[in-house]
This record gives sequence, structure tokens and C-alpha cells, in this order.
Amino acid sequence: MAQKPSIPKGTRDFSPAEVAKRNYIIQTIKKHFEIYGFQPIETPSFENSETLMGKYGDEGDRLIFKILNSGDFISKVDDVTYSSKNSALLTPKISEKALRYDLTVPFARYVVMHQNEIDFPFKRYQIQPVWRADRPQKGRFREFYQCDADVVGANSLLQEVEFVQLYDAVFTDLGLKGTTIKINNRKILSGIAEVIGAKHLLVDFTVALDKLDKIGEGKVKEEMLEKGISESAIEKARPLFSIAGTASEQLERLRGLLADSEIGMAGVGELDEIISTVENIGLQSAQLQLDVTLARGLNYYTGAIFEVAAPEGVQMGSIGGGGRYDDLTGIFGLKDVSGVGISFGLDRIYLVMEELNLFPDSLDTSLDVLCLNFGEKEGLEALKLVASMRKAGLRADLYPTAAKMQKQFKYADKRGVPYVVLLGEEELKAGAFVVKEMKSGQHKTYALDTAAVFAKDIS
Amino acid sequence: MAQKPSIPKGTRDFSPAEVAKRNYIIQTIKKHFEIYGFQPIETPSFENSETLMGKYGDEGDRLIFKILNSGDFISKVDDVTYSSKNSALLTPKISEKALRYDLTVPFARYVVMHQNEIDFPFKRYQIQPVWRADRPQKGRFREFYQCDADVVGANSLLQEVEFVQLYDAVFTDLGLKGTTIKINNRKILSGIAEVIGAKHLLVDFTVALDKLDKIGEGKVKEEMLEKGISESAIEKARPLFSIAGTASEQLERLRGLLADSEIGMAGVGELDEIISTVENIGLQSAQLQLDVTLARGLNYYTGAIFEVAAPEGVQMGSIGGGGRYDDLTGIFGLKDVSGVGISFGLDRIYLVMEELNLFPDSLDTSLDVLCLNFGEKEGLEALKLVASMRKAGLRADLYPTAAKMQKQFKYADKRGVPYVVLLGEEELKAGAFVVKEMKSGQHKTYALDTAAVFAKDIS
Repeated sequence: MAQKPSIPKGTRDFSPAEVAKRNYIIQTIKKHFEIYGFQPIETPSFENSETLMGKYGDEGDRLIFKILNSGDFISKVDDVTYSSKNSALLTPKISEKALRYDLTVPFARYVVMHQNEIDFPFKRYQIQPVWRADRPQKGRFREFYQCDADVVGANSLLQEVEFVQLYDAVFTDLGLKGTTIKINNRKILSGIAEVIGAKHLLVDFTVALDKLDKIGEGKVKEEMLEKGISESAIEKARPLFSIAGTASEQLERLRGLLADSEIGMAGVGELDEIISTVENIGLQSAQLQLDVTLARGLNYYTGAIFEVAAPEGVQMGSIGGGGRYDDLTGIFGLKDVSGVGISFGLDRIYLVMEELNLFPDSLDTSLDVLCLNFGEKEGLEALKLVASMRKAGLRADLYPTAAKMQKQFKYADKRGVPYVVLLGEEELKAGAFVVKEMKSGQHKTYALDTAAVFAKDIS
Repeated sequence: MAQKPSIPKGTRDFSPAEVAKRNYIIQTIKKHFEIYGFQPIETPSFENSETLMGKYGDEGDRLIFKILNSGDFISKVDDVTYSSKNSALLTPKISEKALRYDLTVPFARYVVMHQNEIDFPFKRYQIQPVWRADRPQKGRFREFYQCDADVVGANSLLQEVEFVQLYDAVFTDLGLKGTTIKINNRKILSGIAEVIGAKHLLVDFTVALDKLDKIGEGKVKEEMLEKGISESAIEKARPLFSIAGTASEQLERLRGLLADSEIGMAGVGELDEIISTVENIGLQSAQLQLDVTLARGLNYYTGAIFEVAAPEGVQMGSIGGGGRYDDLTGIFGLKDVSGVGISFGLDRIYLVMEELNLFPDSLDTSLDVLCLNFGEKEGLEALKLVASMRKAGLRADLYPTAAKMQKQFKYADKRGVPYVVLLGEEELKAGAFVVKEMKSGQHKTYALDTAAVFAKDIS
């Protein structure tokens, strides 16, 4: 009996209409990556396990898809390990490769392996799928694309400024106006950790502080105390509770709070320079917002961090994020290479654009003209006509069989073809073809050897 | 200690220059796919194992990359299987998913799953990577792209004609002139099998016959006898030994040979129609050649089969292939859907184009203009200038730090930037920027607010 086919959970098929929309976003991002001087690279879908394992924390290690060794893989497992029946111990013995979990670690690996061919500063972009064995939910998949741009080998803050401009350029071009680019700096977070007296409480602190708008100061303090942050630490961090207003007002307040923290003050200085430069140059449709509660998960960030929120009113997590890392390539033996990069979340951008109805209508047209098939002799002539239309650059097709006219028209209609060509016995005798514009129903006649004229007329 | 990074054997990193060349080929193929009315779909990188296993023969099953189940996968293995220590028995218990092995089986799965959304005939193309645990060698990788176009849901031979035209259009556009599109028909091979009296000897027969040019008739017969093909069968198939000349001459001879084989004669009729129609319409740079020794490996072909050979003088296996299959979707429960499709071998086309030096020079330029960095104040103005250049569509970049001029020029040189912009203290005072054309060394001055004029000048 035949199988009833399905696909693994968290994965997707993309129909022609969906591919067109995804490509529209990807091409827009790609265009601006290139305008900003980034160059494309590609890395393999799977890496040696040791390249990936241990780079994303314990949770990351668990979510990495491992590939089973080929051949008689069991014969290479020693008896002790085998008899342990322990999945964690067995995994490295039967699996040497794993699917890419993100594009950043493979990029670091690439930079180290190819350091002698690369001219630094190296601006690269990479648009490829990644895989995570995560629990699927709305907007979260087991296979999804990342669109990353990074620059490594220089530590000018102008690079952070450029990434803010790049976000603005892409989202403006996509018609996604009113995005908020949140910015913070890991050094400020380190400064706050110094002030509250414990680095390990920083995450609890920022998570609680982030709820200020929703639950109010009293409840936030309660949560902090519960998490073990002392009364005096909370008191010291009090200026953060009323932090608001413009970026320069917030920075002023942070200067007061972090005066005794060298690293904290360095972070304030960096943010000040980035924000004032961005303000000086101006943005098109996005706004840059300092958010001291922004922390971002991954541990390799050391300077500025970014996260982009969709326009107000759209319920969606961040549609982009990134930051500066000062020693990403160090894990592969290349020290002192500073880098900064951002990522665009293709799937979420797609969902937001669907919700706001921002995809251009023109994406739907898959075929410019369909030539109907009137029979063997006419079909042959139609195929020649279609060949000339294609040479003129039109997306043209001949209905493959001499099916009933009704059926052929129905097909043209379903595919949304704007023009249908009739080339029957009469037309053949007259050395002509007739074009029917589907929307208006109007007809126009062309000489058989003037496919190029028709192509020009409708372009 | 830091790891010395490497990538799995049979996989590759692609540098910016390589990505540009690969994209050039892909974009050309894609353009013609769309001109021919094909629509893109994408399927997941991994499928449920039962979708793939058993579809490519035993060898294929072995070469499919399996993905290890997540979590405590061992706990789900029953004791009997575990204690067998048998890799083949254990695999289905610890692995439920596998990486795509080709694009054809996933396409068949897609058609069956989405049959109610699809308007037949359905012309789809798909350009995605596939993975095979094959022994890597020149031009053969463990991760490589396939570029497939198929049409399902109609059985007109005009579709075969279109695929020949499509091959011709793509290779002509790539500048790859003088390719040979070999064509045969599985029905003719079945007919020959009838004539020589044994279907299971067909492969041995065609493999031996294929060597005729190299080793001569005597040695070919020797090989056939060795393989168990009888003297009388060889005698019956004698017309095949001297088959040559034009397609119609060859078809004539086949008609004689296969007169008693209904299926063989059907194959001859189909080939005749396809070849005469192609000749009637004409090809641009490829030639169509009937090759009765062409068999192609995969078993799902039932009608015409294709294979494309690189221009004479280039040592390379086939750079494309395909054929008609009458029941591919049957394995997933959808009967009587005829299909035909072709594939382009990206990696081999790449190697051939490198060898013949066919990539356009213009692909190498990654940046139109680099703005040098003279210091903090000038850098800020330069960033504004770069922003206007980018808005004008130029790929423009600012050197991120005020490094020594020599270093900045060296970087521009290495990246092959055609224009360098100087915006120092003097230029700033004069409200101007200076453009140096790197090749000629000539300078030209523009007003600071006329980035668009400069963009127009160099485009």
C-alpha cells in the first residue's frame, strides 16, 4: 500500500506564491547588503560536531541536529560505552557531523580557516538555512533562514552606525515603516552588574526591570528581592527605574549611576557616540531607541547589542538582532579579531508583511502569456511562436495538449495569466495570432512573425 | 587550547568570488526556467525517513544521510534490537529523519500532499542542495546543488521538445556552445531487451555496446558473451552495432530491429516525433543526438531520457540529464500522473565554465567605490557622503578607521575597487570630494551634495 506522505514537524513546503514572497524579502535584504559593501559567502550545511558543540550553551547543544555516521557505525563503539545505554555518551561515538545551528559560528570558523585569503576588514553576508530541534510554535520552525551581515577585523564604532542605517534601509525598502531599533551595550550591563553587586543576578535584574511598564515599580522590586537581589543593590540601581526620555537624557542618568564603573562608563561613551552619529546622519523610517533592559541571549556579545521591533500594533517578537563580539574567532585560535554583525529574521518579517499587506501585487504573476493548443498542426506553430516570445524575454507557455477550450481557459484563469494567445486554423491561414487580454476581454491581432512587437506592447 | 577548524570531507566553503560565479549560473538557469513557465517551490532539507528510504535502491539507501533523533533516543530502542548491535536494525529506531537525496522524490511527495492546491499541468522548478554520503572525488561532493525543472499532469511529447529547447537556451546563454543533448527512450531499451531475450541483461548489453567506438565490434561481442548474452541474441541485435548517421537513419534501422516489439516501436515513434519537431523549430547552439546506448541509472524513467555532454574537448561527465516517468507519484498514492523533467549539474557546469574561461569579468567587482577615512571629523562627513551614494544605488563603503593612507589604498586595490573617494580636510573646506579612478589614476572633483551625479557618471 502506498504511504500517505507527510513532512517532519517544524518544517515547511513553500508553494510558488510563498517562494515569490520569500525571495522578494531576501532579494531586498541582499541588495542592501551589497550596497553596503558586504560580500556573500556560503558554508556547508553540516559542520564537524566539535565546531558547533559547546558554542551555544547546554540548551544549544541539545537543540543541534546530529547526523548519524554512515556504514556500520555501531562497530566503532567501544563495549563500555555501548553497555552504558547512555544517549549522551553514545552520541559522539556514532555521530561526527551536525547541522548548522546559526551562521555566526560557521562564519568564525570560515574566517579562521581562510584568514590568509581574506582582506580585513572583511564584510560578509550569508543567507542560508539553519536547523534547531526546538519545539515548533508560531513563527518558530526547525528549519529556517538566517540573513546575516558581519564585519570583522576593525573596531570602529562607525560600523555600529552603519548597521543601524542598514536596518533602516532594508525595512524602509520593504515598506515596513515605523520599526524600532533598540540598542544597548553589554558594557553598560556589566556596569549595572557591578553596581548591584553580583554579575550572576544581572539576568534576573534586567528581566524584572523590563516589566516596569506592565507591573509597576513595587512589583518589580518585589521580584528582584525574591530573586535574591539585595535591598541596597536595588537602592543603588534606583536611577534605572525612572530611566526614560530621549537617549541623551537616559545616557545622562546612566553616567550618574555608573560613574564608579570603568566598563560601564565605556559602554555609555560608546552608545553616546553611536546614537549621536546616527542622529546626525538621520534615518528614513526607523527610530533608534536606547533600551537598558535589552540583554540578548548569546554570550559572545561584548559591546553594542541590537534588536528590532516590528511597527507598533503588530504582535511579533524581534524581527532582527545583533551586536559586537570582541573575540568570536578566539574559539578557533585566532585572537583579537573584533567583529560586529546583525541578522534579519526572514520568517517573522514575512509574517509581519503578510499582516500589514505589504507584498506587492505584481509578485503573483508567474506567466506573462499562455498560448492555447488547437491541435497537432497548430500546436507545432504555436510552439514556434512561444519560442520567439521566450527569446523576447516573455514568460510564455503553450498548453501541452489540445484539451477543450474551456479547460485551457480555466487553467489560464487559475494561473492568473494576463494574456492568452489564440492560434487556430483561421489565424494560421492569415499568418497571424490573436491576443486576448484576460481582464478586459479585448482582442488584438498580430502578424505571426511579430512576437517581439507583442512583447514590447505588454512590457 | 583552541581547536584547529576544518570542514567535513566532501563539503565546501564558497568565497565571495565563488558565490558570484555560482549565482551567475543559478540566475541564468532560473531566468530560463521562468521564461519557460516553470514556478519555484522549496521543500524541507530533511524528510521523514520513510519518504526517502527504498526509493533509490539499496545503494541509495546507504548513501542517504540519517539524522539522529533528539533527546534520550536510546531509551526508545527495545532490548532485542539493542543487544543485536546491528547498525542496520538500529538505524530506524534511533533516526526518523533523513537529508534530501535528490529533488525528484520530494517533488513527488509535494505533488501528492498538495494535489488539491495545484493546477495541472504543474510546471515547477526547484534549486536546492542535496546530500549524499558518497566517496568524494573530482566534481562529486557530499553536499551539492540540483537545479530541476519538471512538469507533471500531461503526457504531450511537446514537453520533451520544450526541455530540449530549454537546455539549448540555458547553455547558449551561459556561452557554453557546442553541447550535445543525447536522447534515448526507455521503451526502445525495453524493445532491445525483448529482442535479446532477457531484460536483466539489458544493462550489460548497453554498457558493452557503449564501448564500440573505443574497443571495436569484436571486443564488444566478447564482453557480451562473457556476460551471458547468447550468440543468437547478439546476432539479432546486430543492426545496433552499425547504428550511426543522422537520427532518422538510426530510427529507420531501429524500426527494422524492433518491428516485432510493440513497446520498442512505441519508443521509436516517440523519439521520431520529438526529434523531428526539434529539427523543425531549430536549436541555437546545442545539437540533439540519438544515442541508443544511453540508459541512465534511476529506475523511475519510462519514456524519453536525456543526458547532456559538455562541448567536445572538455573532459567531464554529463552536465545535465532527465527523462519521463509515468508513475512517480504512485509511490505516494497518486496514480496516473505522468511527468517529465530535467536537471542541471551546477558543479560540473561550473568546472566546465572555469576551464573554458566563460565567466564574465564583471562578476568580480564587489564594490563600486571606497571612501577613504581621514579622521573623526572627515569620517563623519564621509559616512554621510557614502549614505547618499548608497541611496543612489552604488555599492559604496567607508574604510572604517583612519588608518594610514597606504594601508587604505592597499585594501582598495586588493578588493578591486574601481573608484576611491578622497574627502580630507581641504576637500571638506571646499565642500567637495575627489574621485580617483584606480586604473587610470585620474582625478575628478565633485561638489559634496552631488553624489547622484557621480553615480550617474560611472554607471
